[in-house]
Amino acid sequence: MADDKALTRREDDFSAWYNEVVQRAELADHSPVRGSMVIRPWGYGIWERMQRALDDMFKATGHENAYFPLLIPMSFIEREKEHVKGFKPELAVVTHAGGKELEEPLVIRPTSETIIYSMYAKWIQSYRDLPLKLNQWANVMRWELRTRLFLRTSEFLWQEGHTAHATDQEAQEETREMLGVYRTFMEDWIAMPVVTGLKSESEKFAGAVRTYTCEAMMQDRRALQAGTTHHLGQNFSRQFDLTFQSEEGVEEYAWNTSWGVSTRLVGGMVMTHGDDTGIIVPPRLAPTQVVIVPIYRKDSERTGVVEKAAQMRDRLAAEGVRVRVDDRDHLNPGAKFWEWERKGVPFRIEIGPRDLAKEQVVVVGRVTAEGADRKAFLPEAQAVVEMPQRLEEFQLQLLETARARREAHSHRGVQSIDELKEVLEGPGGFVYTGWSGDPEVEDRVKAETGATLRCIPDPDFQSTEVPDRCVGGGEARMEAMWAKAY
Amino acid sequence: MADDKALTRREDDFSAWYNEVVQRAELADHSPVRGSMVIRPWGYGIWERMQRALDDMFKATGHENAYFPLLIPMSFIEREKEHVKGFKPELAVVTHAGGKELEEPLVIRPTSETIIYSMYAKWIQSYRDLPLKLNQWANVMRWELRTRLFLRTSEFLWQEGHTAHATDQEAQEETREMLGVYRTFMEDWIAMPVVTGLKSESEKFAGAVRTYTCEAMMQDRRALQAGTTHHLGQNFSRQFDLTFQSEEGVEEYAWNTSWGVSTRLVGGMVMTHGDDTGIIVPPRLAPTQVVIVPIYRKDSERTGVVEKAAQMRDRLAAEGVRVRVDDRDHLNPGAKFWEWERKGVPFRIEIGPRDLAKEQVVVVGRVTAEGADRKAFLPEAQAVVEMPQRLEEFQLQLLETARARREAHSHRGVQSIDELKEVLEGPGGFVYTGWSGDPEVEDRVKAETGATLRCIPDPDFQSTEVPDRCVGGGEARMEAMWAKAY
Repeated sequence: MADDKALTRREDDFSAWYNEVVQRAELADHSPVRGSMVIRPWGYGIWERMQRALDDMFKATGHENAYFPLLIPMSFIEREKEHVKGFKPELAVVTHAGGKELEEPLVIRPTSETIIYSMYAKWIQSYRDLPLKLNQWANVMRWELRTRLFLRTSEFLWQEGHTAHATDQEAQEETREMLGVYRTFMEDWIAMPVVTGLKSESEKFAGAVRTYTCEAMMQDRRALQAGTTHHLGQNFSRQFDLTFQSEEGVEEYAWNTSWGVSTRLVGGMVMTHGDDTGIIVPPRLAPTQVVIVPIYRKDSERTGVVEKAAQMRDRLAAEGVRVRVDDRDHLNPGAKFWEWERKGVPFRIEIGPRDLAKEQVVVVGRVTAEGADRKAFLPEAQAVVEMPQRLEEFQLQLLETARARREAHSHRGVQSIDELKEVLEGPGGFVYTGWSGDPEVEDRVKAETGATLRCIPDPDFQSTEVPDRCVGGGEARMEAMWAKAY
Repeated sequence: MADDKALTRREDDFSAWYNEVVQRAELADHSPVRGSMVIRPWGYGIWERMQRALDDMFKATGHENAYFPLLIPMSFIEREKEHVKGFKPELAVVTHAGGKELEEPLVIRPTSETIIYSMYAKWIQSYRDLPLKLNQWANVMRWELRTRLFLRTSEFLWQEGHTAHATDQEAQEETREMLGVYRTFMEDWIAMPVVTGLKSESEKFAGAVRTYTCEAMMQDRRALQAGTTHHLGQNFSRQFDLTFQSEEGVEEYAWNTSWGVSTRLVGGMVMTHGDDTGIIVPPRLAPTQVVIVPIYRKDSERTGVVEKAAQMRDRLAAEGVRVRVDDRDHLNPGAKFWEWERKGVPFRIEIGPRDLAKEQVVVVGRVTAEGADRKAFLPEAQAVVEMPQRLEEFQLQLLETARARREAHSHRGVQSIDELKEVLEGPGGFVYTGWSGDPEVEDRVKAETGATLRCIPDPDFQSTEVPDRCVGGGEARMEAMWAKAY
């Protein structure tokens, strides 16, 4: 890594900045296999915390984890008409195994609806077996030509929830409950505010009746689709004979939902909070929240400050802070500061010989509220007891900053496609308009502006207003949010 | 599942018993993809607890998690001579992706040494970058013709640790430290005692200099290889140019280790503790440690006992017990007892209308020490406060029972291959003999008895004695432990 070369600035080339910062923060690296990435410990540690938080939320809403096969018979994928249309072009296919050609090719799962609902059909007989609410943490494969670390790779890690219900309404409630879980997670943990709503017909999941989405604004003002939940209706249950005997003794098809988020969220975190120094990790996700750097010039000074650093580490750990001491001897303090800032650790504590005498330390925040001092000289005890609160404030401040940025780049009152184009080519961001619901309008917007309909914002999740006029002319029936997207 | 049919008894057909019990306990199920299994919530919940415990132990010994690609170029696998010989026959190969034939076929990882050390070569330049100690939780694929749930499936879940060190000695220490971690985990968590030692040349990992193993005795007296650690020497670092500049400024090849355990451990747990009623889950691994079954005949009785059950659940949860109430109305208590016994939940609590009046509950252990009462009528408060200790005793008792069984079927003093054969065909079990170290003796034992050399027991982990005479004649240089194996 050319770490000595200055980082590209976001405003000069956001895309180059992203690629550099992800590698320099040691989040991930390119692998020798085209389209596949290596997630390095710092990136994986962030993903682990995302997993833990989401997993707790899934369990609290009555889901259990299970594991289904990586390989799916080609014939399964082909059963649901829309599903195969969506996924076939991206499949990786195993044709040989154990030294022989297979009778039927197997595909590496691009998503697991087909294999999972074929098993549900075996397990579910009666309404008493419903609802069945499972989640799987897994790797999936969608062959991509143009890949970007975390945002679009052939293999990625994700979770996929799959549920079966006795009624359409229960499935609908599940679809929306999990949408709410995703939204809460993204705001509370990633400090990434999202606009939540329904996808249009052209943007919904291949095989779904309806798809809901969380859309986040990145610093280049593009939208990132951060997580989706799907009401699958009976589309898959009909193809896989997933039936149950109802309370009235009638054989019926079950109603399914599926929902997923992936390692893409790590990319979303980077593009929401990073700056021209490096990435910034929200404290709740940071594998290390505080790094302590002992400062000394002579060996005689070393013992004292390293001891004090260890002592501070233990005291902070006792307060529940994830903390480490960077006592590497071959790097000077400046190099350490630079490395941890690049990696986005929320706070560092510096301890030098003079601090020792004064029983104080220097606490430096990775970022601070506007106008606030970045460096605070604090008595040791105060630095320790206040740290949990500082971390919590840091977390909230990241969310506030991201929200304010999004609001500053949200545009309402746009009346025509020409005007929409002007906004997107000028300031950019999220543009809210009226929409008739006509897909032809959607096509025209896409063709003329390059933007897509990100979602029909949902009043249950945020305030919305339905303008009178459709952006494509005529009367509006709903609100639409448009943006250029990843 | 033919749940109404009686379970095959272990002594009649251990293998049939195993297959039935794994499915009836809803640990796993066969999938439509030959050789791949589905891990159901009860089985996955046990695996999750194994993962959490191991992961904590890995982190406590200085390892971090990362994630490497699922697909490996065929040419990588072919680089290390012994490695390719061991794994090539079992590879699953992706030849097409994204609608096109690939220029170079990609294999689904059977293990990740090659892809991981190719990345280490990129990251490691200096002795200051060492040691590098990473672990990966992942799925792997080894195409198998004859498969058994958990024990041998084409796809399985595992962890693989991969480390790089500056010296042979450090790598050796790492190999043995992780062996100790595995042994501790297997005894403390799975309550599965193991014999720990070195593999012979013919049984070591394809590509290793030396392999250590943990061998557990199943109830049919066969050995299960439960986990292995490998000192890889410089075999892979030479193939992947994994070099570093030493403190003296000399370019050297790094020393590697790798080590792994898999979902096979769930099978080991079943075959160590299960009985003719079902499986038995050690409390530390049980997703549910205590199930509360409210007992009532009339609706008027229902409210009171269900309320009490919920109250007991909350009180037990407050003591740190993983507990649930089974309040399904369509099953009678007997059916519930049977289901939870089959699934191996350590304790159930029964609460009926008469108990309510007496402020008592009935605590029933899944198994108890010889001669102890299985049922205890206890005051509610006592049942609550004593439960953590009961669970701990249950855990220890499982280990003791398994250890006693193993000792009862361990044979020493065997002097010849004929005698070895007699023991293996008669009582069976683990047989300890002297060994010259001559692989020809190993071959003869295998040909004549069907047993393999499980390990050369290690005095650092258990008491061993080296007999004077080799089982194949002549002088012994070491002790060997032989058994028929899974």
